[in-house]
Amino acid sequence: MNLIEEKIEGIVETILSDYNGDRDIDKIDLFSHPDKAIITDMIHKLLRIVYPGFYRDKSYRFYNVKHNLSMLIEDVMYNLNRQTTLMLQAHGADAAWSAERAQQVCLEFFDAIPKLRALIQTDVQAAYDGDPAATSKDEIIFCYPGLFAITVYRLAHVLYELKVPMLPRIMTEHAHSITGIDIHPGATVGEYFFIDHGTGIVIGETTIIGKCVKIYQGVTLGGLTTRGGQSLRGSKRHPTIEDNVTIYAGASVLGGNTVIGRDSVIGANSFITKSIPPCTTVSIKSQELQFKARNCAGCQKAQAEPFWENQK
Amino acid sequence: MNLIEEKIEGIVETILSDYNGDRDIDKIDLFSHPDKAIITDMIHKLLRIVYPGFYRDKSYRFYNVKHNLSMLIEDVMYNLNRQTTLMLQAHGADAAWSAERAQQVCLEFFDAIPKLRALIQTDVQAAYDGDPAATSKDEIIFCYPGLFAITVYRLAHVLYELKVPMLPRIMTEHAHSITGIDIHPGATVGEYFFIDHGTGIVIGETTIIGKCVKIYQGVTLGGLTTRGGQSLRGSKRHPTIEDNVTIYAGASVLGGNTVIGRDSVIGANSFITKSIPPCTTVSIKSQELQFKARNCAGCQKAQAEPFWENQK
Amino acid sequence: MNLIEEKIEGIVETILSDYNGDRDIDKIDLFSHPDKAIITDMIHKLLRIVYPGFYRDKSYRFYNVKHNLSMLIEDVMYNLNRQTTLMLQAHGADAAWSAERAQQVCLEFFDAIPKLRALIQTDVQAAYDGDPAATSKDEIIFCYPGLFAITVYRLAHVLYELKVPMLPRIMTEHAHSITGIDIHPGATVGEYFFIDHGTGIVIGETTIIGKCVKIYQGVTLGGLTTRGGQSLRGSKRHPTIEDNVTIYAGASVLGGNTVIGRDSVIGANSFITKSIPPCTTVSIKSQELQFKARNCAGCQKAQAEPFWENQK
Repeated sequence: MNLIEEKIEGIVETILSDYNGDRDIDKIDLFSHPDKAIITDMIHKLLRIVYPGFYRDKSYRFYNVKHNLSMLIEDVMYNLNRQTTLMLQAHGADAAWSAERAQQVCLEFFDAIPKLRALIQTDVQAAYDGDPAATSKDEIIFCYPGLFAITVYRLAHVLYELKVPMLPRIMTEHAHSITGIDIHPGATVGEYFFIDHGTGIVIGETTIIGKCVKIYQGVTLGGLTTRGGQSLRGSKRHPTIEDNVTIYAGASVLGGNTVIGRDSVIGANSFITKSIPPCTTVSIKSQELQFKARNCAGCQKAQAEPFWENQK
Repeated sequence: MNLIEEKIEGIVETILSDYNGDRDIDKIDLFSHPDKAIITDMIHKLLRIVYPGFYRDKSYRFYNVKHNLSMLIEDVMYNLNRQTTLMLQAHGADAAWSAERAQQVCLEFFDAIPKLRALIQTDVQAAYDGDPAATSKDEIIFCYPGLFAITVYRLAHVLYELKVPMLPRIMTEHAHSITGIDIHPGATVGEYFFIDHGTGIVIGETTIIGKCVKIYQGVTLGGLTTRGGQSLRGSKRHPTIEDNVTIYAGASVLGGNTVIGRDSVIGANSFITKSIPPCTTVSIKSQELQFKARNCAGCQKAQAEPFWENQK
Repeated sequence: MNLIEEKIEGIVETILSDYNGDRDIDKIDLFSHPDKAIITDMIHKLLRIVYPGFYRDKSYRFYNVKHNLSMLIEDVMYNLNRQTTLMLQAHGADAAWSAERAQQVCLEFFDAIPKLRALIQTDVQAAYDGDPAATSKDEIIFCYPGLFAITVYRLAHVLYELKVPMLPRIMTEHAHSITGIDIHPGATVGEYFFIDHGTGIVIGETTIIGKCVKIYQGVTLGGLTTRGGQSLRGSKRHPTIEDNVTIYAGASVLGGNTVIGRDSVIGANSFITKSIPPCTTVSIKSQELQFKARNCAGCQKAQAEPFWENQK
């Protein structure tokens, strides 16, 4: 490493002086920053609180459910309190007010857990009723990414409503990373929500979703345009989906004034920017396809060799 | 933390009593539940068995390949045996039968490994032949998400065929989470299977795929409708893709009676719900696009400033 | 485990002899292989170098920024040096040349960091200006998957330009796994690049992207055909996107000769295989939708029961 040893001091100095730029990426404030690793750990502990038998730590026996639960809650409470304080301060609130507000947030958050668990049980039921591939509800709780994303969103939404900055979004982006399902914590979602497969779903901040809604992979509930940038913040930019609506794979429903009426079905790949009345099935007028015979060099050969071998 | 200290006892009691609801999410049975962390670890050890040089543990030297392999196999065997027993019991089988059946499953699973490795070698070859961006087969094995998803699917499919409940799906959902590729362990897939990019792919439970098939990102091989819910369980709901078929990005092929004939090519974004004969190229009749000049406030300025600056 | 104990010796022997096949998957060379775990760790340490306050290790206090940074850089340097040497050797270079070349690569890579950080700051700014849901730039740095994917791509691209085999692709595939955004390290991307949501995006190896470009989820910048397989390696197969272009969700722009002129806007789901002039808005001529009233068994009942209950 001769060459490297010779130069490393200079490299360190150069990068160090590059931190003096006062740009967004140059911040090194030691105490004011939230910690993503702690937040991720908190999410997983919250899942153990929501589904006590499913996500529990298997490394020790479960002699005393109450003892175990109270340790978990104290741990999450401590970190939620601390991270919320940091986020409030980072967004300009003073230290004393932030500390007090964080305590209130923690208490209101945990008070909401039973109501939230009741909601989540309806999501489990909706997944079971809606998916012929589901063999049991345990399977759904153990491995359906849709339920995972919905659960994390429902937890994050409580914190969003309590106006905790940044933390809710870090939570839903963690779920996005694991599932490919991007639900903004600001969205409003009714009971019995079912997401199947889910990869590629985007549900925007001001979306309102009713009860018993089913959504498939690749669906966007989004904004019509983003040209306004920051000037659009706070306005209703995303659609309203009423009760009992099903939206099939790849469909886009866009715009803050767009309402999909109750009991309607939106077909795959539809692109909807206007409201749809209740009890309506919408689908794309059948796509015009064109067919062409392929010059398949010897049909006997075709099955014996890979496709690309026949192209030469 | 005065306020929190005061209230925490009550919060623990409330959540604890919320567990008494007898709902799906309330289960706390201590011994009957499988363990996702162990299953994830098992998947990674299986990858080390399948690709001995690629996924191996680098923290110790590899003095004795045989000693190392036998430790790995014993470890996976132990956990597979135990998790399979738990899953069988959780699905209603009695303890003695479950234990015996789990042993048979383990032996049949490991007996299948050489045949499975032969299949996987064809998948590596197909990726190399099919992708001009691939610089070597090592690169494919190291970092192609498609090969990762196919490998985990092929392992899980053996367990699905052996009728192990839940475990195969937990395995493929782990791969789904890592790759965005959702292959149900029940699908049947022939040799030389190539998935490129892959994010957003969904391959349903009763799909049948022949030899030398290539599939791109965002392709759905799915069901036509899910309105039947649980009543559809067990029926053929997903398509059959014959040998040497290529399906380009974003295409959907739906329905249990839909057959894509051998050597056919399905164009990007096609929406197919009826069978396609062999040796046929299908594509969307060219999309009607509309073009509009943009009122671009000063074309000189345009290149100097961000797009959204020009919208004001 | 009687049955298993009896058979395990045979299973180990069978799999061991299966490794003698001399196939790609059979390689067990002990020293020539790169280590994915080390590379993943290296990516996360590089993120701490790029964003010193955001990704830093919180487990110890930050008494001395310089001491901390120099430890980080030495660690990355050591591993980058070693992994690059291994990759060069694995691709056929001799040991002495590989060792020397790896040192040069390391030095040029770290020399590029300040320029790279300046670029990344423009990406942060573009995300903030472009997304009404962003509440602060800290939020963007902490949790926007688009910025994560762009940052890892920009780091990997430097190594791609320095002709390090395999390593750049392992880096971008790590980001792909976490974000669903697949940017080939060979792509060329200008400043102020913004990716929103991002899941399902594919950007091919020979893509060229100008300044101030915005891209949404599900966009493919890809090749027109892959039938040529390995024979196409090295040719320009992917499009050119000029400055200030916006490409909305689900659009595909394909082909090495396809150029999207500056200041143009490509509408959602467009399928573009020919060049588009500057200052042009392209959109799909409105999709023909068909509407059908649904026979909704009792509209009163509809809101009380899940959708699928009404289908019987």
